[in-house]
Amino acid sequence: MSTLSNATNIFWQDCQLGKPERQKLLNQKGCVVWITGLSGSGKSTLACSPSSELHSRGKLSYILDGDNLRHGLNKDLGFKPEDRTENIRRTGEVAKLFADAGLICVASLISPYRRDRDTCRAMLPDANFIEVYMNMPLSLCEARDPKGLYKLARAGKIKGFTGIDDPYEPPLNCEIEIKEDDGDCPTPKVMAGQVVTYLEEKGFLEC
Amino acid sequence: MSTLSNATNIFWQDCQLGKPERQKLLNQKGCVVWITGLSGSGKSTLACSPSSELHSRGKLSYILDGDNLRHGLNKDLGFKPEDRTENIRRTGEVAKLFADAGLICVASLISPYRRDRDTCRAMLPDANFIEVYMNMPLSLCEARDPKGLYKLARAGKIKGFTGIDDPYEPPLNCEIEIKEDDGDCPTPKVMAGQVVTYLEEKGFLEC
Repeated sequence: MSTLSNATNIFWQDCQLGKPERQKLLNQKGCVVWITGLSGSGKSTLACSPSSELHSRGKLSYILDGDNLRHGLNKDLGFKPEDRTENIRRTGEVAKLFADAGLICVASLISPYRRDRDTCRAMLPDANFIEVYMNMPLSLCEARDPKGLYKLARAGKIKGFTGIDDPYEPPLNCEIEIKEDDGDCPTPKVMAGQVVTYLEEKGFLEC
Repeated sequence: MSTLSNATNIFWQDCQLGKPERQKLLNQKGCVVWITGLSGSGKSTLACSPSSELHSRGKLSYILDGDNLRHGLNKDLGFKPEDRTENIRRTGEVAKLFADAGLICVASLISPYRRDRDTCRAMLPDANFIEVYMNMPLSLCEARDPKGLYKLARAGKIKGFTGIDDPYEPPLNCEIEIKEDDGDCPTPKVMAGQVVTYLEEKGFLEC
């Protein structure tokens, strides 16, 4: 079936084999787990952990890491607000394709602006967008500073760094929040458990 | 492991779980099947057919259709040469991610310029880029004109249409060529067979 787009001469190509068939093959439901938080808050660590746990259960997931995408798909983009927005938009579109392919797609990006994250959420229907907020205090992230970026930002050598001279807008209604427990950071295993339990309870790990 | 990029403050995030583990889970090898050819040459038909055949064998594939991507990831792009190039580049980058995820990714785009296709090929190491040339004569494609676009192009209502007033550069060394047999077009089943047989012979359907 083809339908003509209004704006241009572009048709929509439909194939008989769709998302339901792929989900059945994989025995899981495609979705996007979107991890947002400050640099150094532990997004990448969190992204890796549930993937291992899911894999051990025979589930297929794939990580879209914001930094890695900037070496490929988004290498033409910088860190100006409009570039950040386009960076998130493209990542959201690709995450949507992976979810449509039947995968549990884990996107890990600072994604500081609420509006940009909500745009991605709007792309995914049926509660298939699971926002995970790494709610770690700036002081902790800056003390960790695993990439030495806060130091550079404080020295004025990086401009527009989230949390220093560019805002981070926390989610208002995220599905999962990960935060300190009595001043202790949860371990990767505990964090992964929080995500995998959510996916299990919501029925994403079967079809 | 993190490594600092030269150009910017971007690190490469590596996860212990990689392509080999995902390929093992799926019992197949991730790759990109890139279908190129004129509008109306049968690219979309060809893209759908092997997906069904692969699915029936328990293999996971996903189609990246050029027209569909222009509704999402590439909706900011037009048909100027530089936009076409960027359209192909982004599609190549996404196809590469799907192959890395372990899927057999079928990309279906006119992709008229040889240089752009070769750029995508260069992204995929180890012969994981399989170029399929839908070698159908312009006269046949124009007679089919399934979207009525050749008519519009001949009437001057579309500018820069491949095959009419914009060049199509055929592949020089494609892996698979699909062409008429004694003036007859191969059936979708026959075309799909050509692709699936290739994948099977090259070991992509096991791990």
